[in-house]
Amino acid sequence: MRSSAMRDMFALTERPEVISLAGGLPDTSTFSPALYARLMAEVAEGSVARALQYGPTEGLRIVAECAAGVMAAEGSAVDPDHLLITTGGQQVLDLVAKTLIDPGDVIVAEGPTYPGALPAFAAYQAEVHQVAVDAEGMVVEEAAAAIAALRSEGKRVKLLYTIPNFQNPAGVTLSLERRRRLLALAKEAEVLILEDNPYGLLRYEGEPLPTIHSLDSGEGEAETVIYLGTFSKIFAPGVRVGWVVAPAPIREKLNLAKQGADLCSSPLCQLFVTAFFRAQEGQRPAWEAYLDSQRALYRRRRDVMVAALTRELGPLASWNTPEGGLFLWVNLDPSFDTTDLLARSEQVAFVPGRAAFYDGQRGANAMRLNFAGSPEEEIEEGIRRIAAAVRGEQGLLGALRQPAPKAPPGGSVLPLQPRRRREQR
Amino acid sequence: MRSSAMRDMFALTERPEVISLAGGLPDTSTFSPALYARLMAEVAEGSVARALQYGPTEGLRIVAECAAGVMAAEGSAVDPDHLLITTGGQQVLDLVAKTLIDPGDVIVAEGPTYPGALPAFAAYQAEVHQVAVDAEGMVVEEAAAAIAALRSEGKRVKLLYTIPNFQNPAGVTLSLERRRRLLALAKEAEVLILEDNPYGLLRYEGEPLPTIHSLDSGEGEAETVIYLGTFSKIFAPGVRVGWVVAPAPIREKLNLAKQGADLCSSPLCQLFVTAFFRAQEGQRPAWEAYLDSQRALYRRRRDVMVAALTRELGPLASWNTPEGGLFLWVNLDPSFDTTDLLARSEQVAFVPGRAAFYDGQRGANAMRLNFAGSPEEEIEEGIRRIAAAVRGEQGLLGALRQPAPKAPPGGSVLPLQPRRRREQR
Repeated sequence: MRSSAMRDMFALTERPEVISLAGGLPDTSTFSPALYARLMAEVAEGSVARALQYGPTEGLRIVAECAAGVMAAEGSAVDPDHLLITTGGQQVLDLVAKTLIDPGDVIVAEGPTYPGALPAFAAYQAEVHQVAVDAEGMVVEEAAAAIAALRSEGKRVKLLYTIPNFQNPAGVTLSLERRRRLLALAKEAEVLILEDNPYGLLRYEGEPLPTIHSLDSGEGEAETVIYLGTFSKIFAPGVRVGWVVAPAPIREKLNLAKQGADLCSSPLCQLFVTAFFRAQEGQRPAWEAYLDSQRALYRRRRDVMVAALTRELGPLASWNTPEGGLFLWVNLDPSFDTTDLLARSEQVAFVPGRAAFYDGQRGANAMRLNFAGSPEEEIEEGIRRIAAAVRGEQGLLGALRQPAPKAPPGGSVLPLQPRRRREQR
Repeated sequence: MRSSAMRDMFALTERPEVISLAGGLPDTSTFSPALYARLMAEVAEGSVARALQYGPTEGLRIVAECAAGVMAAEGSAVDPDHLLITTGGQQVLDLVAKTLIDPGDVIVAEGPTYPGALPAFAAYQAEVHQVAVDAEGMVVEEAAAAIAALRSEGKRVKLLYTIPNFQNPAGVTLSLERRRRLLALAKEAEVLILEDNPYGLLRYEGEPLPTIHSLDSGEGEAETVIYLGTFSKIFAPGVRVGWVVAPAPIREKLNLAKQGADLCSSPLCQLFVTAFFRAQEGQRPAWEAYLDSQRALYRRRRDVMVAALTRELGPLASWNTPEGGLFLWVNLDPSFDTTDLLARSEQVAFVPGRAAFYDGQRGANAMRLNFAGSPEEEIEEGIRRIAAAVRGEQGLLGALRQPAPKAPPGGSVLPLQPRRRREQR
């Protein structure tokens, strides 16, 4: 059901009459066709046979160096030999679950969490226990209490899954203090952390925070953190190239699992990524220049979306204003059900909040909106259509019972979910 | 252990001093860099944003049409909407197992079988029961007896896995009569067939046979056969684009499983494949012209390998001469262990026969050799090195006990395995 909803979303993005704010799509329309052709001509120059051939399962060393360079830009030092190249970040979720999860094992995650992680974990019969998120990200003491309670029930907790930067879907960022506490909790409880960081470099304001991986690794290799990186959001999802950094014994298992899954990720795509990340634009790396322009674009679009929400939905909804990433998380009055709303909104798409919860129940009045993937006029028109649907729904529901609290000017972050001791299944 | 051996193989192919006859690699060195650059320039012309973006999980319709065209060239009629595009053929094995297999379920396969299928199936705790192969392919009555025996033990048999054309690794082709009997068996036993057909169009002599899929589908959709196709062997493994045709309810499950696994296969690669399969060379499709030249190349190399084997290993080994595909299956005297031989052969690589058996025991005196992926002089030098290693091993083993039967001139197919009622685990 969650998965079908996601599939429908991808299908919707192919229908031109629908404005989709649903997918986790970056904007790829500004990438220069001339640069694309030039990079591919470079690959053609000396590497066609290699591009078209199988490659090693762990990936080409040269693209692992590019990935390590991206991590260095976020302050994480990593040996490229300790990286496993994957078919996008999604494959990391799949391989980690495939490798570490036995049926019934528990993954503790944020609530809400990345909708695409839930079916990936569920495919291996993991249970996902979601703990509350507030303005500083995952509430670590709730995670600690959950681990203790789950263990007292005889359950095996294997993994803490977190998206620390501009969380998908809530948009919040885990504070430095919480990063330290989460890492300490994981070490104390002997649970691994899966740090999913697709958006870390998509920061539009504020100061970057160290990755949990870097807090764990110090001088050597990280022991507690499995780090997921991807070129999807800072460059292009269409290359399907991501990576994972994991302690050696786990890395070896992930490699074997990947071999069974798809043998290797496309060498053609890996060589293309390498060509781009080695290219210069004037005095600086081309990818940094591109990232700067994307950040400026996404920041403007975020502001346009916030302004449109304020204008169109002001008294009916609340939201946060994330410092980066792709997503806004919008809460309507609890009387609304965004799954129904989506079904009735033929001309606009979004992710209903239920998709971000393992139980498919919580988040019923919330929605995830992608502000990065659409032009400004589409964002404005999309919000108008959502507002019209909300007003229609409001009519159906009868008089509005109680307006949701309006975000203060400037959109400071509000608590997103009431804290609960235990998740209801 | 099997998987590690395979990983080592991929690693070996990156070491220039080693002649590798191990991997399942086609030759990609003859693909024209100018054509590559031209096709990519076409993608750059109008489709950069789409190439770099996520695509629908089921794949782009335009590449599904190309895949349907390839199937039509083998006499299988299929609606492109009934195809699911995958990240290479390997992902089909993974998704089929993920979707259909519960721990302990049995897959009946050829013995020997594709070494990369075994860990893919084992990852979902499938048991693989392997039945003998002779000159006409899988011995169907043995498969029938195995299904009956397994069921009488209370086991669930879910799948018949076969590579009907130029089987990997045995090189044999399932006869038309056996295709019909295998399909009848599957229908009677209510077991699905997974027809893995990467090499069907790589035929160098003899008459093509209908796919099992086409025998099953008649006017409508196939009900019993799940068909695996791939662009890897007829074009390029580096694009990681394959496909699966399956009955609608299974296709839907495969789609959901794929979404969890990697969201979608690279649209960049899909557009590149499409550009190639739509390109013309003179009056005919460019891919058909390319395939013709590859077939001529591989046929010559097959003949060179057979001649080298005859010259260097004549009295010490037996082999078949396949009518197509990539592989020769070579049997040494039963006193040899090719796993040991590989460990001692530092300058040449092959797949030891044990890797093609689920029990890791059978096939100990066999090896799989790829004749398609290396230039003629490397094939000859590779066989010289193998022969030297065999003679060294022979010295270690003491006097040769009994020479293996020599292949008759022209290399007609010999039985590859003694028939057994039940596989030993």
